[in-house]
Amino acid sequence: MKVLKEKIIKEGTAIGTEILKVDSFLNHQMDIELMEEMGREFKRRFDHCKVDKILTVEASGIAIASVTARCFGYPCVVFAKKATPNTMTDDYYTSEAKSFTKGKVSDFIVSKKYLAQGEKVLIIDDFLASGEASLALTRIVEEAGANVVGIGIAVEKGFQGGGEKLRAEGYRLESLAVIEALRDGEIIFKEEQ
Amino acid sequence: MKVLKEKIIKEGTAIGTEILKVDSFLNHQMDIELMEEMGREFKRRFDHCKVDKILTVEASGIAIASVTARCFGYPCVVFAKKATPNTMTDDYYTSEAKSFTKGKVSDFIVSKKYLAQGEKVLIIDDFLASGEASLALTRIVEEAGANVVGIGIAVEKGFQGGGEKLRAEGYRLESLAVIEALRDGEIIFKEEQ
Repeated sequence: MKVLKEKIIKEGTAIGTEILKVDSFLNHQMDIELMEEMGREFKRRFDHCKVDKILTVEASGIAIASVTARCFGYPCVVFAKKATPNTMTDDYYTSEAKSFTKGKVSDFIVSKKYLAQGEKVLIIDDFLASGEASLALTRIVEEAGANVVGIGIAVEKGFQGGGEKLRAEGYRLESLAVIEALRDGEIIFKEEQ
Repeated sequence: MKVLKEKIIKEGTAIGTEILKVDSFLNHQMDIELMEEMGREFKRRFDHCKVDKILTVEASGIAIASVTARCFGYPCVVFAKKATPNTMTDDYYTSEAKSFTKGKVSDFIVSKKYLAQGEKVLIIDDFLASGEASLALTRIVEEAGANVVGIGIAVEKGFQGGGEKLRAEGYRLESLAVIEALRDGEIIFKEEQ
């Protein structure tokens, strides 16, 4: 997606060969107008899919998932939590995921009330690296007897294996920008096919 | 705000006298269409204010802040983080807040790059209880030399003191639904003036 790549080139920072910092528009400060454009692009790419629900994970997936909902006719958005606040008294699905940036293992938690058998679920997230977060979400959807109709990602770090893993498991993955490498402060995109 | 109160009556659950559970539409599963209506109502109530930036805190404030941005002509949205991921290398503002529902103290963190002196900041959050979270956000805004033009809250628990505290400090607070009491499973709203 051209406008996203231009924004990454303009405002993104490569730190070493592993980390891409895009916190001026994606995951700390957020450009909501750009996110709405991304939402429309997800709609274009997943247009054949009936989407009953959008699933993401706190915190930085929430904004893009929320503004994407409008483009799909306002399905409910559910975000997986990473902890158990004392207001969460019901049964919930859990799945473990290791965060690449934070280097720690979290339990993703979704209340059983908010995923129903047979629902068509679109997973949306801001970043894809090793694929741990998306895989944890797919396990939750499947444990609920619901179906993952697709996975929509803003920025995929194509060199960290997550995309391959998800495609190998048969998921339809659409990433709006795929980074092939980070080298000497340079951000190299994968050519679109 | 009538439609929000009706939704709270229909789907909210009072747990004891302190906790109101609204996770079917506000802070776990989210009704984005309703949040957009709330965004329009915030715009109506803060219409005289020029808003340069919307500030919230992860995780459950992000959705309502993000969909509200459209109504104000897409100012940037910034969410305060509650931890320090290893991608956050810059200087940041911090402020301490005690979470009512989680019962623990967090540091709120905002990169200094994303709040500028003189900016007019609208604080948006899903819940107001003791006011700790909103106060922590106001301290960050003021440390940056920016100005809090208002605080917009979806649901205020009017019996936990936060609203009084914020108004006593001179902030313009607009809560779309104010709960006066939770009693025997009943949700009692404060009359609108």
